[in-house]
Amino acid sequence: MLGICLENVRKNVPLVHNITNYVTVNDVANVLLACGGSPIMSDEPEDVVDITSICGGLNINIGTLNKRSIEAMFAAGRRAQELGHVLLLDPVGAGAGALRTNTAVKLMEQLQFDVIRGNISEIKTLAHGSGTTRGVDADACDAVTEQNLSAGVQFARDFAREAGCIVAITGAIDLVSDGNACYVIRNGRPEMGKITGTGCQLSGMMTAFVTANPDHKLEAAAAAVCAMGLAGEIGWGHMEEGDGNSTYRNRIIDAIYNMTGEILEKGAKYEIL
Amino acid sequence: MLGICLENVRKNVPLVHNITNYVTVNDVANVLLACGGSPIMSDEPEDVVDITSICGGLNINIGTLNKRSIEAMFAAGRRAQELGHVLLLDPVGAGAGALRTNTAVKLMEQLQFDVIRGNISEIKTLAHGSGTTRGVDADACDAVTEQNLSAGVQFARDFAREAGCIVAITGAIDLVSDGNACYVIRNGRPEMGKITGTGCQLSGMMTAFVTANPDHKLEAAAAAVCAMGLAGEIGWGHMEEGDGNSTYRNRIIDAIYNMTGEILEKGAKYEIL
Amino acid sequence: MLGICLENVRKNVPLVHNITNYVTVNDVANVLLACGGSPIMSDEPEDVVDITSICGGLNINIGTLNKRSIEAMFAAGRRAQELGHVLLLDPVGAGAGALRTNTAVKLMEQLQFDVIRGNISEIKTLAHGSGTTRGVDADACDAVTEQNLSAGVQFARDFAREAGCIVAITGAIDLVSDGNACYVIRNGRPEMGKITGTGCQLSGMMTAFVTANPDHKLEAAAAAVCAMGLAGEIGWGHMEEGDGNSTYRNRIIDAIYNMTGEILEKGAKYEIL
Repeated sequence: MLGICLENVRKNVPLVHNITNYVTVNDVANVLLACGGSPIMSDEPEDVVDITSICGGLNINIGTLNKRSIEAMFAAGRRAQELGHVLLLDPVGAGAGALRTNTAVKLMEQLQFDVIRGNISEIKTLAHGSGTTRGVDADACDAVTEQNLSAGVQFARDFAREAGCIVAITGAIDLVSDGNACYVIRNGRPEMGKITGTGCQLSGMMTAFVTANPDHKLEAAAAAVCAMGLAGEIGWGHMEEGDGNSTYRNRIIDAIYNMTGEILEKGAKYEIL
Repeated sequence: MLGICLENVRKNVPLVHNITNYVTVNDVANVLLACGGSPIMSDEPEDVVDITSICGGLNINIGTLNKRSIEAMFAAGRRAQELGHVLLLDPVGAGAGALRTNTAVKLMEQLQFDVIRGNISEIKTLAHGSGTTRGVDADACDAVTEQNLSAGVQFARDFAREAGCIVAITGAIDLVSDGNACYVIRNGRPEMGKITGTGCQLSGMMTAFVTANPDHKLEAAAAAVCAMGLAGEIGWGHMEEGDGNSTYRNRIIDAIYNMTGEILEKGAKYEIL
Repeated sequence: MLGICLENVRKNVPLVHNITNYVTVNDVANVLLACGGSPIMSDEPEDVVDITSICGGLNINIGTLNKRSIEAMFAAGRRAQELGHVLLLDPVGAGAGALRTNTAVKLMEQLQFDVIRGNISEIKTLAHGSGTTRGVDADACDAVTEQNLSAGVQFARDFAREAGCIVAITGAIDLVSDGNACYVIRNGRPEMGKITGTGCQLSGMMTAFVTANPDHKLEAAAAAVCAMGLAGEIGWGHMEEGDGNSTYRNRIIDAIYNMTGEILEKGAKYEIL
């Protein structure tokens, strides 16, 4: 099933509108192209309604939010929702500052997202109204580990139910739940944390996967997580002496580009709890 | 002649002011350096007049336009025109939304561009006031093909005459016309469409080429198109197993960096109609 | 000592807030991760005070300044100063336009920076209130050379004393002075000038180095300069036929990623005058 989710992206070429940060935006565009989607970026309030109307999904990432782009997020979000588009929220840095936390909370209140994807500290902030965080990275003390896994799964499931959408919490172990089933995913490598924007890339790609698989949104979200982690494993296998995080970044996007449904199906490491 | 156009860029090191989108801006800067130009970016209305004054060319790309940057486009454009600088317009996404279309049209009305470069759907939007588009990509039904080539050439020539400038329509077959002659260019590879920003890169590079060759603007614009397409071919030749669109992006810019006038002269595939 | 400065970055993982340009921001983030720091970007006035509060250093780069980001620079700068954080200014393009020059001067007047890092033309502009410049590159006639070295060292020392902070002037020969000692550094390669943003990357990395070495700020700033130049040398050693400036960019960041204290100690080429 996960492999078919990827194949549907390549077949349907979903057009994804991204309101995202300027740090990692180029990688988000290239990974969307790599997986078979088509990216478009726009964050001017007067432009976003038109742009989102021609798309199938909207990826809202608050990584370098500003007042103009916040206005654009709400305007595009409302329009996308009217049109029944897939809506994804990436609450980058929620918990690190009041504007980020409040913006993410208000977006959740005013829009019905299909997916919320973040690290554990960001998602805890949204769930509890407060959280610890280390900038845009998760706080180590929040991390989902083999030891606290069942509590983590319960948290993901509860928050998904509360938010009425799929929740994807990514880290060393990834959790993807719709409030009932919970995918526990163990793809990926720790070195991915030394590249800026693998989370942002995943959010863009996940929007494409969910958009291209409207009848299997949970599987599609889980497939995107597995694809990203597996690309991290495949890309690492191509690293040579002297290579570092910049080359690794390229190798991960390259691995997405070359990934087939079969490769994903075979390489995905998950259980469903 | 095309080879000399490239050599003139390397000799004259034209300083190019870019008001461009934040998705592909880094690649635009690196490709400008690769071809021998020197890039500078600024999109604050209070800064652009000073910045454009010290440059030789101005590249206006509306890919992630906003109200501030639109104001900057007009302010910089007026100043660049007063100073007789080369002016290029890249109407990214014209046809995909009213703000983009209207901004491109107004820029054309108020400024006399030396070159307008876009995909066929964007250029049709500017020519006819409306167009079909697939986000920032051309609509397949608009594409210039061997079958409809003579109509495409006629369209390019007519629009160039109407707009009073060089028009470059890029796609599988590229057309570059000043209203009289029309270069029909067959360099490039389809895989270039899987990299974000090859069009934006071309616009930046074309501004440098035209700026460095003031007495041969049409040849310079065509040379830039051939150089980009040829770099796509050369870069593809360096691709190894496991490489994908991210590595391909690097290889294309690398190929521009290593291109000589002689390589360009030998590799350019064009006819003049 | 320089090697220990790098090791302290890897040990302390300083969180660096960057208000920087959108051209090179992704490379700044990746080089910060490569050296062992942790980057966060924010330029919205309502967000920056919170964000900078959780960081240890603030890197202000005016490369694509706008009115919003200028307001954010002052707000974040004041807060960072209250908290005793490391403050670095990169006056990109000072001398190229009044807004850039005036903003850099006002920032210096209202904030007490720990380090100012720029090319010789930018620093001369700050020192003398006017300067020649070629866009964002130094004017050749300003360059520090073996012939005018003692005058350059004197200038660096005098300006550091006047500004009350460390001054790093980078070019073919780099000078880093706190008003007393002056490091004269001869690492690096001329081809680094064909990559956009090596200066921006250095500023980000230098903020991390100084933040992680509060008792040895001058040595830390010099260590960052040596590390960047040495990475340029190591990266160049990995270049293969067909590689150009885009691959070179990756190789430099990779070399930072793989650099140890010992490699830096052995490869640093400097004298202290």
